[in-house]
This record gives sequence, structure tokens and C-alpha cells, in this order.
Amino acid sequence: MKIILVGFGFIGRSFVKALREKNSAIREAFPDFKLIGVSDIDGYLLDENGLDLEILSKIRKVYEYPGKLVQGSSVELIEKSGADALIEATPTNIANGEPGLSHILKALELGMHVVTSNKGPFVVAFRKIMDLAERSGVNVMYEATVGGAIPIFSLKRWCLRGVEIRRIRGILNGTTNYILSKMHFDEVGFENALKEAREKGLAEADPSYDVDGIDAGCKVVILANSILGKNITIKDVEMKGIRGISLEEVIEAKRNGKAIKLIAEIGEKFQVKPEAIPLNSPFCVHGSLNVIHLETDLAGDLMLIGHGAGKETAAAMLNDLLSLPAPR
Amino acid sequence: MKIILVGFGFIGRSFVKALREKNSAIREAFPDFKLIGVSDIDGYLLDENGLDLEILSKIRKVYEYPGKLVQGSSVELIEKSGADALIEATPTNIANGEPGLSHILKALELGMHVVTSNKGPFVVAFRKIMDLAERSGVNVMYEATVGGAIPIFSLKRWCLRGVEIRRIRGILNGTTNYILSKMHFDEVGFENALKEAREKGLAEADPSYDVDGIDAGCKVVILANSILGKNITIKDVEMKGIRGISLEEVIEAKRNGKAIKLIAEIGEKFQVKPEAIPLNSPFCVHGSLNVIHLETDLAGDLMLIGHGAGKETAAAMLNDLLSLPAPR
Repeated sequence: MKIILVGFGFIGRSFVKALREKNSAIREAFPDFKLIGVSDIDGYLLDENGLDLEILSKIRKVYEYPGKLVQGSSVELIEKSGADALIEATPTNIANGEPGLSHILKALELGMHVVTSNKGPFVVAFRKIMDLAERSGVNVMYEATVGGAIPIFSLKRWCLRGVEIRRIRGILNGTTNYILSKMHFDEVGFENALKEAREKGLAEADPSYDVDGIDAGCKVVILANSILGKNITIKDVEMKGIRGISLEEVIEAKRNGKAIKLIAEIGEKFQVKPEAIPLNSPFCVHGSLNVIHLETDLAGDLMLIGHGAGKETAAAMLNDLLSLPAPR
Repeated sequence: MKIILVGFGFIGRSFVKALREKNSAIREAFPDFKLIGVSDIDGYLLDENGLDLEILSKIRKVYEYPGKLVQGSSVELIEKSGADALIEATPTNIANGEPGLSHILKALELGMHVVTSNKGPFVVAFRKIMDLAERSGVNVMYEATVGGAIPIFSLKRWCLRGVEIRRIRGILNGTTNYILSKMHFDEVGFENALKEAREKGLAEADPSYDVDGIDAGCKVVILANSILGKNITIKDVEMKGIRGISLEEVIEAKRNGKAIKLIAEIGEKFQVKPEAIPLNSPFCVHGSLNVIHLETDLAGDLMLIGHGAGKETAAAMLNDLLSLPAPR
């Protein structure tokens, strides 16, 4: 199994560290496992004999890898590599899914499996990607796109065989949950809570993608299409973020034994909106935790709680990688 | 895929109903699927062409099935059936695992896969069963033995590949959780809460298996052996039940924002004991719900909440069945 990694930001580097840490487990599944290529915006590294995971797990840019940088694009790496699988970890872009969408389509065309953490391509072109993967006879795995380390797609596929999931509710954005928890417990206003989230690296300079509910909306699209078999896009999701939530509302909810949370709903409705949730409900998770509640027919209600972002996301990508069929 | 069902109590009958309801999903996996035999204490039914699921899902004893009863043992059914898989759903017996242990060993010897809800055999002979299954080249699946509809063993196997689970904590017995929740919310004493659990069919005439922590202790054994790779028996589990919990203690905990729960721990220690848990922790689930908390290396902390018993358990057995390889 020869793989290449496109995107060497936080998620890409966390994945490399996981590959290094879990080398023996990976070699059990794929005895000839090698990471043969890595790219970022500065160019790519390619070595048929495998790159050094020890070195890669210490650097932050591909040009820091000694004596290997090729000044070419990620698409060039994908074409030249002859890899069995692409790990796509570039940032999400929901306007047109790029550059992730082109990377994924190119890899699928070439008969490579794809494992990705990138929501963009699935928000703009879910069916197109799935159809191409099927025609090419390869797998496209995207566990890391929703709920971070919470294994929702693999749970549906391998742990709930024969069970119908009817409705999903979740807290799917760690940044807004951190901000709302901060407002609730420390009784500070939205702007102050946002400032602290920024200082902790939990919010971007432009926080609108998180705080306006767009990130959670993207996850609604992927869950609806993947788990409920719908064919929706972000335009079908009603989204209301947390920017308008005042400290007074938060304190009023608290007085009633509740906390305001940004709730995603996937079922009859496709929406993201703030709701007051009873504090003693297991669904009411705080900090940057995520929760996913499944309403099923045969298994009743199931709830999963875990890290919605951060280095733990690499666990989801590792499970996806280890679920791929070994190359012949 | 020809299967037989041994044990026609609540779980066995719930499983038959699931087979009927999910017939098309099952036929997708196994086009020639048939339930060819069912047994209980009164004898067995055997029909190579398949028994009628419609009839079976309406009766409560195998002798009510028209014109088919054979007065023979379950072992005789297993031997005569030529089935591909045994579904074992007789009651748990932790003294010697019987009669389930003999059923399972016989089936494995004959090269049948096994799917079971019966804890007894795994508490007394976990390694023996696993070794025999491996020698016979068949699968033995026991998702329904722990946490009811919560898919813990399949999660570990198919959703956390490469991830190490270091420690497990859980509320694993629905009966005691119902009793403790009743004491907490209605402020009634242990005996009254137990009486109500009995009336709801949640506790046996002899409730000691549940209230003394033995049922949860059995689950500790299975989780330790299966997930942490240990080789322990019930003697290695320190067990303290809830019989000694007074209403005063429950109310005192409540005053401190906590609830007393019967907590199972699998890690450095193997134990079951009552503990006061903060009410606003998602781990503090009430009623007959179960919760399983996993401490992992790569994926961080994960928590699963679901129905620990009842008809939902059939979902776990169905997933086990659908995970079996199709007969050649």
C-alpha cells in the first residue's frame, strides 16, 4: 500500500504523527505500507522507497524535508505518484470545493482510493464523487469530515447493519460550543468568548464560517446525503448562527436549568439553529466536545460524544485508511 | 445462509421479529437466507425449506407452531440442522455457562458461526470459545452480551482500527440504573424502587444477579477479555452492588449535584461499585439507559449511550449476523 498526502497543515501533520506512532498496526494490515509523497502549497516530496516519517513528523513545511522538494502542484504529485491511495487534507472551501475537489476527482479517475478530512468537495459534489468512486471501483472515505474522532459513518456501515437511521441531531461545531460554554460558565459576552476562542486557536481571524453556522451546515449536508440517502446542498440547509446570542439569553437559560447550544438537525428538516438544552441531558456537552444523537428503528436511540476537532481527528483518518482493501 | 435459533424467550422472539422486519436487508447480504430451526425447553422445530417468520413472530412457545414440534434437545437440533450459523439466546448462567456453553461449543465444532446474547459462556470460558472458533475457521459474535444495543465490540473492531483502548468505564446494568434513578428522582427507598422495577419486568423475582453487581461484573469480564486482551474471570472482579444504598445517601448526593450510579471499571482495576456522579456529566444517564466511556490513545475520549437491554438488543444480534461471511 503506497499512499500520498496532499495538505500538510495541522490535520495533515497530525495524520503523519499517527502513521509514525501506529506503524506496526498499519504494517499488520498492509505489510508493504509506505508514505511515498507529501505536498503543500510550496511543492511536493516524492520517493518511491517511502519518505521518512521521523523527519516528516518534526517539520512544518515540506521544504524543510532535506533535499527532496519538487516545485510542482499537488495534482502533478497525484498523477506522477502511482499511489494506491490519496490522503486529502487541504482546507475546506465550500464555494467550489477547491482545491480538494480536483485532487479527489483526479485520484479517483486514476483508480486511487481516497481518505479525506475535507468537507468542501462533499458539500458541493457529493453524488459526483460517489458515482466516480463506484465507476472506478475504489473507496472514498470521509469519516473525519463530521464529528472529528466520533466514528459516525463507519458506525452506520459496520455497527448498525440492517438498522435504519431516521433522524440525527447533533452539536457538530466545536468552536461555537466552546464560545457558548464560555458564555454559560464564565458569564462573559459573545465578543469576549470569541476572543478567547481565537487565543486558543479554536477560531479563525474571520470566524463567520463557524459562528454563523456554516460549518455545522456543511456537516448537515454530508450527514443527510451519506446517512439518510438524500441529495441536498448547503442551499437546502436553514442556518442560524450564534452571533446574535446575548449574555442575557444565556443567563436566562441557565436560570431555567438549560444551556444554549448550536443544534444541527437532519431528518424532516435540515437546519442549524441555537436551542436551549436541559443541562442534565447527556446531549448537553460543553467545551469543544461534539455529540451526535441517532434516532433509529431497531436499535432505538443512540448517542455518541467525542472530540469534534483537533489531533484526535487523525484517528478517524487512520480507521478509514485501515479499512481500505489491500492492493493486489 | 441457513441459521437456527436456540432459545425462544424475550430475546429470541425479539430477534425473530427483527428477522421478519428486516428480511429485505438480510436477503441483500444473503440471498438464500432461511431460519431453518428454532428450539426452546419444550423441543424444536426444523424445516430445511425455512420456517415461517410470520407465524414464529406471533407465538410464544415453539409447540404453538403448527405440526412441527420434535421432542428433542437443542444439541440435537444443532447436530441435525446442517446450519451455517447458530443464534444462541438461552438465559445467562454464570455458574458453569450452561446450557449455552455446550450449544456454542457444539456449533463451533461443527463449523457453524455463532451469534449470541448469552453472557454465561464468555464469563466461564472466553479463551476456550475463541480458540475453538479460530481452529474451526468460523466467527463467534457476542455484541448483545454487553450494553444491549450499544455497539461496543463492533465499534472497536471496525471504527477504531489502529486505536488503543486503555480504560473503560460504564453504567452497564439497566435494572440497577432504573432503581437508582427512581430513588433519586422520586426519593423512594431501595425496596420500593426494586418493587417498581419488578412490576415493570425490569427485575427478576430473585434480583441479586442485578442488584449485587454480578451482571455488571460479567460484563467487566467480557470487556476486559475482548477489548483489553486480558484473561480474567468473574473471580478477578471486585463487586459491590446497590443493596446497601440508603435513601439518605441518595438525597445527600443529590444535594451536592450528583447521583449515585453503579459504575463498572475496566483498566488497572476490574471492579463494580456505586459512585456519586455529577448530574451535569453526560456520563450520568438515567432510567434503564447504559453508557460506555472509552479512554483511547489516538481518538481521545469517546462515550456511547443507548438501550442496555430490551428488544433493541436484537439490533446488535442483527449486525452480528449481517457481518458473517456468506456461505460458499
